[in-house]
Amino acid sequence: MIALLSLILGVARADEGMWLPEQLPGLSDELAALGLELPPSQLADPAQDPLAAVVSLGFCSAAFVSEDGLIGTNHHCVSGYLSYLSDAANDRARDGYLAGSREEELWAGPAARLYVVESIEDVTDAVLRRVRPRTPDLKRREQVDAAKKALVAACEAQPNRRCRVASYYGGRTYRLITQRELRDVRLVYAPPYAVGSYGGEVDNWEWPRHAGDFAFLRAYVAPDGSTADHAPENVPYKPPHHLTVATEGVAPGDFVMVAGYPGSTYRYRSAAELRFHAETVYPRKVAVYTELVALLTEEAAKDPEAAARLSSPIDFVGNSLKYARGMLDNFEKSGVVARKEAEERALTAWVEAHGGPHAEALAELAAIEEAERATWARDTVAGWLMWMPDLLGATHTAYRFAVEREKPDLKRDAGYQDRDLARARHRLEAMDHTLWLPADRRVMALLLRETQALPADARVPQLDAWLAAQGGVDAALERLYAAPALAGAEARLALLEMDRAAFEASDDPWVELAVALEAWQAPLRQLEREREGARLRLQPLYIEALQASRGGHFYPDANSTLRVTVGRVEGYAPRDGVLHLPQTTVAGVVEKAGPAPFDAPQRLLDAAPGAPQSAYADPALKDVPVDFLSTLDTTGGNSGSATLNGRGELVGFVFDGNYESMSADWMFDPALTRSIHVDIRYVLWLLDAVEGAGWIVEELSPAH
Amino acid sequence: MIALLSLILGVARADEGMWLPEQLPGLSDELAALGLELPPSQLADPAQDPLAAVVSLGFCSAAFVSEDGLIGTNHHCVSGYLSYLSDAANDRARDGYLAGSREEELWAGPAARLYVVESIEDVTDAVLRRVRPRTPDLKRREQVDAAKKALVAACEAQPNRRCRVASYYGGRTYRLITQRELRDVRLVYAPPYAVGSYGGEVDNWEWPRHAGDFAFLRAYVAPDGSTADHAPENVPYKPPHHLTVATEGVAPGDFVMVAGYPGSTYRYRSAAELRFHAETVYPRKVAVYTELVALLTEEAAKDPEAAARLSSPIDFVGNSLKYARGMLDNFEKSGVVARKEAEERALTAWVEAHGGPHAEALAELAAIEEAERATWARDTVAGWLMWMPDLLGATHTAYRFAVEREKPDLKRDAGYQDRDLARARHRLEAMDHTLWLPADRRVMALLLRETQALPADARVPQLDAWLAAQGGVDAALERLYAAPALAGAEARLALLEMDRAAFEASDDPWVELAVALEAWQAPLRQLEREREGARLRLQPLYIEALQASRGGHFYPDANSTLRVTVGRVEGYAPRDGVLHLPQTTVAGVVEKAGPAPFDAPQRLLDAAPGAPQSAYADPALKDVPVDFLSTLDTTGGNSGSATLNGRGELVGFVFDGNYESMSADWMFDPALTRSIHVDIRYVLWLLDAVEGAGWIVEELSPAH
Repeated sequence: MIALLSLILGVARADEGMWLPEQLPGLSDELAALGLELPPSQLADPAQDPLAAVVSLGFCSAAFVSEDGLIGTNHHCVSGYLSYLSDAANDRARDGYLAGSREEELWAGPAARLYVVESIEDVTDAVLRRVRPRTPDLKRREQVDAAKKALVAACEAQPNRRCRVASYYGGRTYRLITQRELRDVRLVYAPPYAVGSYGGEVDNWEWPRHAGDFAFLRAYVAPDGSTADHAPENVPYKPPHHLTVATEGVAPGDFVMVAGYPGSTYRYRSAAELRFHAETVYPRKVAVYTELVALLTEEAAKDPEAAARLSSPIDFVGNSLKYARGMLDNFEKSGVVARKEAEERALTAWVEAHGGPHAEALAELAAIEEAERATWARDTVAGWLMWMPDLLGATHTAYRFAVEREKPDLKRDAGYQDRDLARARHRLEAMDHTLWLPADRRVMALLLRETQALPADARVPQLDAWLAAQGGVDAALERLYAAPALAGAEARLALLEMDRAAFEASDDPWVELAVALEAWQAPLRQLEREREGARLRLQPLYIEALQASRGGHFYPDANSTLRVTVGRVEGYAPRDGVLHLPQTTVAGVVEKAGPAPFDAPQRLLDAAPGAPQSAYADPALKDVPVDFLSTLDTTGGNSGSATLNGRGELVGFVFDGNYESMSADWMFDPALTRSIHVDIRYVLWLLDAVEGAGWIVEELSPAH
Repeated sequence: MIALLSLILGVARADEGMWLPEQLPGLSDELAALGLELPPSQLADPAQDPLAAVVSLGFCSAAFVSEDGLIGTNHHCVSGYLSYLSDAANDRARDGYLAGSREEELWAGPAARLYVVESIEDVTDAVLRRVRPRTPDLKRREQVDAAKKALVAACEAQPNRRCRVASYYGGRTYRLITQRELRDVRLVYAPPYAVGSYGGEVDNWEWPRHAGDFAFLRAYVAPDGSTADHAPENVPYKPPHHLTVATEGVAPGDFVMVAGYPGSTYRYRSAAELRFHAETVYPRKVAVYTELVALLTEEAAKDPEAAARLSSPIDFVGNSLKYARGMLDNFEKSGVVARKEAEERALTAWVEAHGGPHAEALAELAAIEEAERATWARDTVAGWLMWMPDLLGATHTAYRFAVEREKPDLKRDAGYQDRDLARARHRLEAMDHTLWLPADRRVMALLLRETQALPADARVPQLDAWLAAQGGVDAALERLYAAPALAGAEARLALLEMDRAAFEASDDPWVELAVALEAWQAPLRQLEREREGARLRLQPLYIEALQASRGGHFYPDANSTLRVTVGRVEGYAPRDGVLHLPQTTVAGVVEKAGPAPFDAPQRLLDAAPGAPQSAYADPALKDVPVDFLSTLDTTGGNSGSATLNGRGELVGFVFDGNYESMSADWMFDPALTRSIHVDIRYVLWLLDAVEGAGWIVEELSPAH
């Protein structure tokens, strides 16, 4: 009903919206009505509290929560670190880890990074300076790309900086984001898997939820305060800003907000694209991911070492599977396609009434989308093949570095410049902790067979030829996995030193396969560049028309840049006759306890009866609150974001959305879209009453 | 929490309790506080409105709802009639039935009966008149049995009466219930299975529920108003009393009550018995019923005729399976064993403090129970064998009639007197509509194998010997099912005419098997009679001690006699973070619609959008309410009971309990035990807006 109203009115409510910080002053009235006590201007400034305490791990959000560089984030955001820190003797992915003191904090590995925003600057003029209305599409794309790379290069000429030019509203505006990159990140505390991911895949995306999905890291720098690689003598980083813990918890109806890095949303995609996803994309993903989860789970069950290495990939694919399934369920439940079509009718009406270049732009965009859908099946399977099997992904990446290395750095494709080398190297090293050959082989087998099942007009000829030369899929697998040199980190790293000619002359099967696939993909990439140029020309017109036809506040789709979303603690009615209350309790953890994934540690169950009498109990619930729901508009990438109250104080960490929120990536539904947070009082109770981690509680306490 | 309090206080709240009507005046204050508007004295009188309108189908409750003998009950209570009325051409079990007028009302078959209470009389003195404190147990049982039979015989000397002496509180009191037996019962309306059992086994025992579990019958009598067998010239029965439909529906918090015939509860069984059920009885039932449901479902899938015949048995066993499973879940969830043990400690404390004969009685009762548990595994499997396969059940029943027929009628075992012959005959005839030999054979095979898996000290020697003589189970099955004469109704009916000698001389394999099993069972029945005599002596002492140790109001266990239960429309919290609201709506029916068992008829889905604007919509829900929850204390047998408001007006029909209510048969939990009712407004909307059955609505309307 509310959804319908906001659609009819064409006005986004404040709790729909991944706002740019700078937009918040324009929402003053809505924010005050919701319960924000800070001046919106303070909230709009990334250099002031609280935004200045918000950081990124690259793939997750996080926040400084002490003056000594303690960082709060989600348990599931540190799962890669925990895999890196696990071996047969210490299964930290399963058991978690508690440093008894700062000396025991564990280096999270060479891939771990912390990004601290230093500035966000509008660079639209600089990016589009050379672009003219009649610039051909490929040229346009090159101009924009070159301008962005130049800005990034200039920015990264400063030491220890990571810079990015982000595009908003399909290329209407650009911002240069300058981040300091801290490279010595250590694990302070992660709860056991059975707490951090309590309920596992069963509860993933579900409510009621009882996960303690939080963890603490700490950033380290050289003794002189400068950025440094990991070294024993490093000292904790002293952030200029950090969040303080709220002295009062949240209650239903309370204002909450989240500042973080939402990854991607598709709120402004066309109805045709949505329909294609509903009818083709998600059903296909469900089919393939189902097989992937099954085979990874089988392999993990065979060996404890396999279980440790595959735990993170299984969670990842399982989550993607549930997301694709849930998307389909929710498209139906929320009537998303019909709503999108109604929205598009309003857009069409506006375009027709308005005249101007918009009608033509929309038609041209539609034609590009249609062409992409025509090759989607082939491109997707080939894409999975080049990415999912670890060893092929590593080889293909190295080969692309070699090819790009032949050009001047600034002409290279994004992701394959010199600035990207260190990260690629770390990823190849870290693969030692996640690679499990029997599983990798089965993933490869599945995907090769999928390519062979493609129809005649959707083949990858270079792959077909290579497979034929091997004598078919089975023979190819035998050759690839007989004794892969790449199973060792050194061999993988050596790939990054090889030049293009060496790749193309190699008779290593992995290299042959990567070269064959690249021969197919390179020309397609050129086509994609041309389409990208066209989009740069067309999308600003599309977005302009969409904004005009909707009226009211308008926010850009998520793009992994800093956003603020505001709303309230609020439950919802998942179906007729049922209310989901917005808070869960420790009693609920006990109620669910049983076999995995509900195998709560005995020490937690033992402490639970004392929770209602503890300092962390909620007066209304008469128990320690565990998780809570809010109307906040979040998505993947927001994970780990600190949740703040109206005074900007820490009340929890957002870690998931409800099942009904999945389709919000396409279309927000105020009646059903909810974010799920772990309550800071559960965090404190666990640390204090269950883990005996008083020193962390002490460091977190607001009086510290 | 509330459960705990009521346990500590030892006082039953009014909404726990299957009250004898005569007890209601003693609950005046509680009833007034809950919202009863009628004088409790009126409610206590089975000869006055509303109780006088309450009737029984023998296995379900029902009520007169018009002056022309229209009867409201549950859809699932008429499923046997619907099977009887179904064949390949007319699948009324699936499609339901609507008589277009009285002329089209369909005779529900020879087994259909309607029982109308004429009087309930305390006959304790008459039953116990000859019993002395030192009477030996077997003798005591015979005296009580003889006295009861004499009372029943005298009562049934009146024409067309069915009488019963019911025992309360384990034999402390007895009541003679005189019922008029109407024999021409016709089907007026039954919704399609997909409405009446919407959600099928998936939703059975669950909330939120959206079943239209109601049906209408009509009782017919001879043109002169006398009781008559079915005949075309019969006319509708004019009941002296009938319920009127409430002009306002129920809302959360409203007073509701149900008068009906709850079957059995075990509220006063010992903790040891409860533990045995939790550890042995229900787990065993789960195992066997799971196999039964699977094999019946397989057979039903093979043939449309099989599907029609097996639909009712599948529902029955499926329901029993879910009940056994749910019982185990709820024992754990509600902590029933611990609560029962606490209750028993209070009893023990009272007994110890009180002195007197109670301690010894409790010890003797415990010894009897223990002896019964020792042979439970054998007795149960053998019992299933003699009951579940249709043809063996029929043969064994007939043989017992033959054996008992050698005694004077009043000396025969209950159930095998002349008065029981007509019912047995109807059952054997009706078997034509439910018997499906391939399924019967598989049930028989399963149970024979179960008997062969019993340990050496728990065998049925007569069965073992017979099987050995056949050459084992497989050979026995071949012989039994080669061409069973009993597959025809005539052959089955002929069994009832055979004398004992003819049975014992027969070489029909069914008869041989029935005779062998009876040879094993007869002496055990004698032992059981002796134990029954002991119980008659001991249980009144046990109940007396229990009542004294608890204090407060006290009601007898359910025993298929007329009871009244009172409470409110109220939801519950099934688990942390979730509230179950007490009402569902037509929008929820649409929300669930999909493949079976949610295959709502298209005509219902078409009418649904108009429900909010219909006369039957609830002002608060803004839709037609479908089902509602109450705190009423009901159990199997209550099905079909009319649900009344505080003025005694019809507001719905109770048809199920929530999942959490199963364990209430052992122990009521005010926080979780809920009854589920179909709202009369859904009944009226379906009849009016979906079925076009305006003439029934007209007959039901309060102004009629």
